[in-house]
Amino acid sequence: MILANTYHLWQRPGDALIYKAGGLHKFMNWKGPIFTDSGGFQVYSLSKFRKVMEAGVLFQFDLDGKQEILSPEKSIDIQANLGSDIALILDDFPGYPFEYERSKQSIELTQRWAERAVREHKRIMESGDPINKGQKLWGIVQGATFADLRQQSAESMVSLGFEGFAIGGVAVGEPHEEMMKAVNFAIPFLPETAPKHLLGVGTPFDIVQAVSRGCDTFDCVIPTREARHGRLYIAEPNAPGGEGYSTIDIRLEKHKEDFSPVDPTCNCYLCLNHTRAYIRHLFATGELLGIRLATMHNLRFYLNLMGKIRTAIQYDYFDDMVKNFRQIE
Amino acid sequence: MILANTYHLWQRPGDALIYKAGGLHKFMNWKGPIFTDSGGFQVYSLSKFRKVMEAGVLFQFDLDGKQEILSPEKSIDIQANLGSDIALILDDFPGYPFEYERSKQSIELTQRWAERAVREHKRIMESGDPINKGQKLWGIVQGATFADLRQQSAESMVSLGFEGFAIGGVAVGEPHEEMMKAVNFAIPFLPETAPKHLLGVGTPFDIVQAVSRGCDTFDCVIPTREARHGRLYIAEPNAPGGEGYSTIDIRLEKHKEDFSPVDPTCNCYLCLNHTRAYIRHLFATGELLGIRLATMHNLRFYLNLMGKIRTAIQYDYFDDMVKNFRQIE
Repeated sequence: MILANTYHLWQRPGDALIYKAGGLHKFMNWKGPIFTDSGGFQVYSLSKFRKVMEAGVLFQFDLDGKQEILSPEKSIDIQANLGSDIALILDDFPGYPFEYERSKQSIELTQRWAERAVREHKRIMESGDPINKGQKLWGIVQGATFADLRQQSAESMVSLGFEGFAIGGVAVGEPHEEMMKAVNFAIPFLPETAPKHLLGVGTPFDIVQAVSRGCDTFDCVIPTREARHGRLYIAEPNAPGGEGYSTIDIRLEKHKEDFSPVDPTCNCYLCLNHTRAYIRHLFATGELLGIRLATMHNLRFYLNLMGKIRTAIQYDYFDDMVKNFRQIE
Repeated sequence: MILANTYHLWQRPGDALIYKAGGLHKFMNWKGPIFTDSGGFQVYSLSKFRKVMEAGVLFQFDLDGKQEILSPEKSIDIQANLGSDIALILDDFPGYPFEYERSKQSIELTQRWAERAVREHKRIMESGDPINKGQKLWGIVQGATFADLRQQSAESMVSLGFEGFAIGGVAVGEPHEEMMKAVNFAIPFLPETAPKHLLGVGTPFDIVQAVSRGCDTFDCVIPTREARHGRLYIAEPNAPGGEGYSTIDIRLEKHKEDFSPVDPTCNCYLCLNHTRAYIRHLFATGELLGIRLATMHNLRFYLNLMGKIRTAIQYDYFDDMVKNFRQIE
């Protein structure tokens, strides 16, 4: 599944163009499922300024400085034009460090926005001319690391009848333990059989921990961004319990004459075909093939990790995996 | 066949490292044939300064400013370490505009260097420990656009017993007609059955014209460099004679809502899978996938062109192709 960014696509090439193309699947010729976010996170992380109002968020686009309001309805309209398989409601969330009062306001505003988003989504699906009449809309649970707020947010989201839920407000700079608190406080109040997505997470360790708490899916820039900087994930099968991983910086001098694969246990194109010395050379000379191969490697590492998690759950040894799985420094 | 640049590889990662890796085929895991140039062209085009002496060329590397001498022997040593299938002698050549006296000196110096290169190549192949004992060494014909000099250069190269020849000193800024003069004056004095490579050429039109004069193989940055700048080759089957091609600038606004392929007659990945609107969007947003798809397209255009040339020769209508094949503006 690809997660596509509503904010970026709204700005360029614009959702009207993608609608004309027949939706995002057709525009980029991707036959798998597509998840879209609300656009709210990039408004928070990229905009030159941002003012949260009842109507929506007033902000300036990062590239052209154009002012816009991203409202709950606007976010739904854009996502309907993109035609993703799963759309998300616009949410408000406080940054880190978390404060109770601000967090309380944020879940209440998010709830009012959610009601408007549901209404708008229903209107478009029923009487508009959407790209994807089967598009699902998922709710988002906020509430930072406050147990009562996470519960309140989860319960009121459930009351709106969503089929799936995202847990938001995490991966904003908080330590791993805080992130897990947020998950712990939200999960028990969501339907056991509903899919649960953890927004913007995370490291391999974060993922295994979050799955053990009930999360199903994730989206994150870490594997691709790390790859572009030459940091590659490798398995450490000799670590205690046979689990664990580490990262290497392929740009370092020490890999210069290393004619072994990045990870001999990996089945990605890079590891099956090339040596550390070669990929280091590609990085050293700025050849774009380097970041491409590195990206393929890190994505394969993450996909293999998700496969291992599924197998461990299926054969009932996931508890052991959770106990042993960690990053080896 | 890949043409690998001796100058670049000498500088980074160094031919000693590639030798340790078991040669360039193993270093980059390429199982097809590899052609290496002498390094002389980049010394001419990239070096901060360059002084041609009897011993070789004194120059400064472009990246680290290190001074080196590229001698005929050194070029052979590096290419032997790379282990290419076809190596080239170091040649001297004047830039454009061509001058008779300078060109005459250049073929004489190139001939003396060629003799030294042949000796060094023989020494390494027979008593060294080369990567590729079957490496072929090809001569280079110089002489600019002067008939007597091209003849003298070709004949003296032939006298050294090379199995294949390159025609050099072209693609240095001269008009197409001058380039073809250089080819015309060289070809008749080379063995009919020997393979003939035209160095650094060229546009599709240059290639068809050069093949019609007896050239077999080519190397050039044009298809990949043009691709990175968004200029894509397309067939123009409605042009007179059913031949011809043009280029489009995919970055232009006019392609923004064009949901047709770049070239409906092309069988590359880009044309089979994506629209002009999509690739234009990738260029507009600086997505690296854009230059990758564009590069695949232009390389496919060139490879298809070579295939068409071979078919036209095989079925005896190449003269017609030459007559009609041109760039439509």
